[in-house]
Amino acid sequence: MAQPPIREVGFIGLGVMGLPMAINLVRAGVHVTAYSRSPSPVELFVRAGGTGASSIEQAARDKDCVVMMLPDTPDVERVLLTPGGVVESARRGTVVLDMSTISPLATRRFAATLRTHGLDLVDAPVSGGQTGAENATLSIMVGGSDTAFARVHPILEMLGKTIVHIGDSGAGQVAKACNQLIVSVTIEAVAEALTLAQAAGVSPRRTREALLGGFAASRVLEVHGQRMLDANFQPGFRARLHLKDAEIVLETSRHLTLDLPAAGVARAALQRLVDAGGGDQDHSALVTTIENARFPFTDPA
Amino acid sequence: MAQPPIREVGFIGLGVMGLPMAINLVRAGVHVTAYSRSPSPVELFVRAGGTGASSIEQAARDKDCVVMMLPDTPDVERVLLTPGGVVESARRGTVVLDMSTISPLATRRFAATLRTHGLDLVDAPVSGGQTGAENATLSIMVGGSDTAFARVHPILEMLGKTIVHIGDSGAGQVAKACNQLIVSVTIEAVAEALTLAQAAGVSPRRTREALLGGFAASRVLEVHGQRMLDANFQPGFRARLHLKDAEIVLETSRHLTLDLPAAGVARAALQRLVDAGGGDQDHSALVTTIENARFPFTDPA
Repeated sequence: MAQPPIREVGFIGLGVMGLPMAINLVRAGVHVTAYSRSPSPVELFVRAGGTGASSIEQAARDKDCVVMMLPDTPDVERVLLTPGGVVESARRGTVVLDMSTISPLATRRFAATLRTHGLDLVDAPVSGGQTGAENATLSIMVGGSDTAFARVHPILEMLGKTIVHIGDSGAGQVAKACNQLIVSVTIEAVAEALTLAQAAGVSPRRTREALLGGFAASRVLEVHGQRMLDANFQPGFRARLHLKDAEIVLETSRHLTLDLPAAGVARAALQRLVDAGGGDQDHSALVTTIENARFPFTDPA
Repeated sequence: MAQPPIREVGFIGLGVMGLPMAINLVRAGVHVTAYSRSPSPVELFVRAGGTGASSIEQAARDKDCVVMMLPDTPDVERVLLTPGGVVESARRGTVVLDMSTISPLATRRFAATLRTHGLDLVDAPVSGGQTGAENATLSIMVGGSDTAFARVHPILEMLGKTIVHIGDSGAGQVAKACNQLIVSVTIEAVAEALTLAQAAGVSPRRTREALLGGFAASRVLEVHGQRMLDANFQPGFRARLHLKDAEIVLETSRHLTLDLPAAGVARAALQRLVDAGGGDQDHSALVTTIENARFPFTDPA
């Protein structure tokens, strides 16, 4: 059955990611009505040619698609289920496109609830950060039915470069959790290796260069390894957000009775970093949590 | 001071790595006299045009350079220091090129001992495996003085593609330890992530594909991730050898009073794999050590 094309879009959550994404939709010619808890990003959005909404209800009413880009699971739950929220306000047939990074298990519950109200939920968390959001080069991992995926695909193409339909509802969030697991553990691995080199009196810089040519090569060794060498922890991706994602990983694995020890090590390191006041540093600052490390790194004489 | 060029080479240790390396030197026109504990690889070497030796002493006497490619630290110690070993047999000015992967701390002790006998030690562990040894495409991480490095450089160019002088004696072994640390932890990360996807009912195959486009991308996700999906654990690199290297990492870090928790997790996983009889499987078989994992992976219907 052919699905009606998406013309009217609601957008909820104009943060550092959401605002540039909503503006990209406007620039691509979509009519977007956006709501955010604080009024100033809504003003910026209106100045960029979008339509402002003063409530969730206004952003969700009479739309073909409602996009959400929110910080965490409880935010998504509130926006969906609160009185005057998306479930109450959206008409039947609306597809709700949740691009937040939240719990896969909660996503499956939300999808079931929305279905009973005649709403489709597509989970489509992204990676690529603020730059990816601004340049519409995000990687998007999508969970949902084939028809719902096909329906939102034109919208996703306005926001990202790599769009992969992973599976049913929740599958996008599971893939994102796997992504965040690998990134956090690889950052920890690179941090431990460069710390070991430094402690052994060997140049971390040359070690990283030599290792980039072999099986230790990774985007993390390249990008985050360089940040560690430069002690440059401007985000990037904030440690406190990665800690939130690491908790999603462990909550999900506990529910599945899986013990993921390396994921646990990375979570603990992110927790130490946040506890030490580094929550707004780039996650590569995890290198500063290793005990007895001599940091910043210096090359041996 | 110009160093005498290397014409006569001794080679000790004709294993799966050493034999093709020694043959590559012969093919490049070097006169190589090789010894190995068991006679059959020596015969193969002679058939390939090399000169066979029936003792360490014979391989080490009157050489410009003695290459060693041995399994572990005690083997190197024995070959160097045993009566009739390299230290007793080699003439002053010989450079000993240890291409084994062994302890960085022991390497520094050996270098000091050799220096008192007028011998130079260069540590030059490799990565790239049997294929790299056969095709002379190894990555070689080198520790030693500038003059000793310059002297053996032509030999290393006959064996490898990427040759990086990391620092003084032991620095090559430190870089190799860092390499093995990152590879083992990244394998564990990829194993945990694909296991999480499978347990959550999401295709590990599509998850890997989606993740290769972002910050989770690595050679390990590419190569070892594919092996995990295919349940193909033909080595590759044997788990028991990686366990040996993981023990070098932890011995070195303990000596430096560093606590490297992710390296510890990977070591424990390799130990479980070896204990379960998987020592001769590729190290990517580490995915089979995760508790409650449903393995081999299958895609959801």
